[in-house]
Amino acid sequence: MELWFTEKHTTGAGLVLKCKKTVYSAQSPFQQIDVLETEEFGRMLLLDGLVMTTERDEFIYHEMLVHPPMHIHGNARNVLVVGGGDGGAVRELLRYPCIEHVTLCEIDKEVVETAKRFFPTLSYKLEDPKVEIVYQDGSTLLKKSKNCFDLIVIDSTDPIGAAKTLFTREFYSACKKALVNKGIVCAQSESPIYHIEIIKDMISNIKAAQFDSVRPYTAPIPTYPGGFWSWMVACISGHCSDNEIPSTLPADQYAKLKYFNLDILKAAFCLPNFLKRALDKS
Amino acid sequence: MELWFTEKHTTGAGLVLKCKKTVYSAQSPFQQIDVLETEEFGRMLLLDGLVMTTERDEFIYHEMLVHPPMHIHGNARNVLVVGGGDGGAVRELLRYPCIEHVTLCEIDKEVVETAKRFFPTLSYKLEDPKVEIVYQDGSTLLKKSKNCFDLIVIDSTDPIGAAKTLFTREFYSACKKALVNKGIVCAQSESPIYHIEIIKDMISNIKAAQFDSVRPYTAPIPTYPGGFWSWMVACISGHCSDNEIPSTLPADQYAKLKYFNLDILKAAFCLPNFLKRALDKS
Repeated sequence: MELWFTEKHTTGAGLVLKCKKTVYSAQSPFQQIDVLETEEFGRMLLLDGLVMTTERDEFIYHEMLVHPPMHIHGNARNVLVVGGGDGGAVRELLRYPCIEHVTLCEIDKEVVETAKRFFPTLSYKLEDPKVEIVYQDGSTLLKKSKNCFDLIVIDSTDPIGAAKTLFTREFYSACKKALVNKGIVCAQSESPIYHIEIIKDMISNIKAAQFDSVRPYTAPIPTYPGGFWSWMVACISGHCSDNEIPSTLPADQYAKLKYFNLDILKAAFCLPNFLKRALDKS
Repeated sequence: MELWFTEKHTTGAGLVLKCKKTVYSAQSPFQQIDVLETEEFGRMLLLDGLVMTTERDEFIYHEMLVHPPMHIHGNARNVLVVGGGDGGAVRELLRYPCIEHVTLCEIDKEVVETAKRFFPTLSYKLEDPKVEIVYQDGSTLLKKSKNCFDLIVIDSTDPIGAAKTLFTREFYSACKKALVNKGIVCAQSESPIYHIEIIKDMISNIKAAQFDSVRPYTAPIPTYPGGFWSWMVACISGHCSDNEIPSTLPADQYAKLKYFNLDILKAAFCLPNFLKRALDKS
């Protein structure tokens, strides 16, 4: 028997991955959680049938979610991760000695438990004493938070269902209030191939929440829609500049990264014409 | 009825595209040629069942195949394209006023005829008076060519079947002899996700053919294996430098490009760690 998983990225295009077996399946109060063992990408976490992460290519997503904003900020100590229950963002954050405290705000406790059980390479830093896990909706936690975070990392699912509120102007306004002066927000922002309208809406909503600057950046991710993904950083004061970046990551940690380096930091912000033009119009 | 095309990129991963219809199918003396009308990527050209190009994302491949070497060279006048019967590489080359003559050496006349008939946006420059089409194996033509080309663009299929010889040391040696002083070779070099060994072999073979320098670069391509593709430029004298590049492309032509710009030129050469490390060991 051959078992093939299919994710349709649009009505007319998708990804197929051969699976060795279903490792785990459960319905949480929030979503369907599945873990598949794939032939090509190792273990794969699915939420409501969509690929969240795979052992083989998760490094690109998580390194690019965390290291650009950490480098642009230069000295983030207190960080909030919204979503990110798999632990990948936390793992990357804890590479920095400047990090004092990470709050992981994940709505679904069963995602964290699934990651701890089946994805040890992603989740092994979730038990670190610097990490506090709060099982709550990100918006609810943010309403109670004022001037406390240096960086907010929005590691959300797609803007449908539970994560929809994490893409609104109100949410970005709450992020702004929760940030200290010179604070930064970084958010995953979907595929430049299939989701240009979402990217435009995010920029427009972040600007409406009165951030000083917002800058999209990109990297290839084989198992994500279009094989090409984007993130954006937004600064509450000044330009999100990748120049004159203080190097806060120790050399032994740089050596462990599989995607990110200082050349990639600059390169990721260089956008292809089709994307620049679409965003210039927004 | 729903008709889905599947390309397996490895034994365990692939791409699926919904098709409206089969537009054309034929067996040439060299390969099976198919044209499908897809819902998401427009018309798609297949050779022996593998995706060669689609109307929607071909711009990334062809712009990145041609503009980096044209910018690095700065004044290429006489260019050889090996393969590239769809006309996309020729179209990009003819944007430069410095181009005097393009020789397109395509082994399969039926690919050119299929492109002319079904892919006008790719092939419309094939009738230009500066373009000469030679229906021959690239290796055969190169054996007769000495010190005549400024740039050789290797727009090949994968290194199996007819295109296998286009990846050998002997072929790169023949390219070197066919280039004038300060000549450049540029070649498509497969996916950094699935074909690292091919990329390493190409670099090794190009170095063995005594080019002074060889530099890989990358871009995302949704319909290609892993969604992430590579090319490499090799210079017979000096370093393939992207610094101090003379701008030989008129502003109105820059404005027509959908992927490439001068930021992308530099960014494309910034390689992620996993690729740098794999190639450092080669």
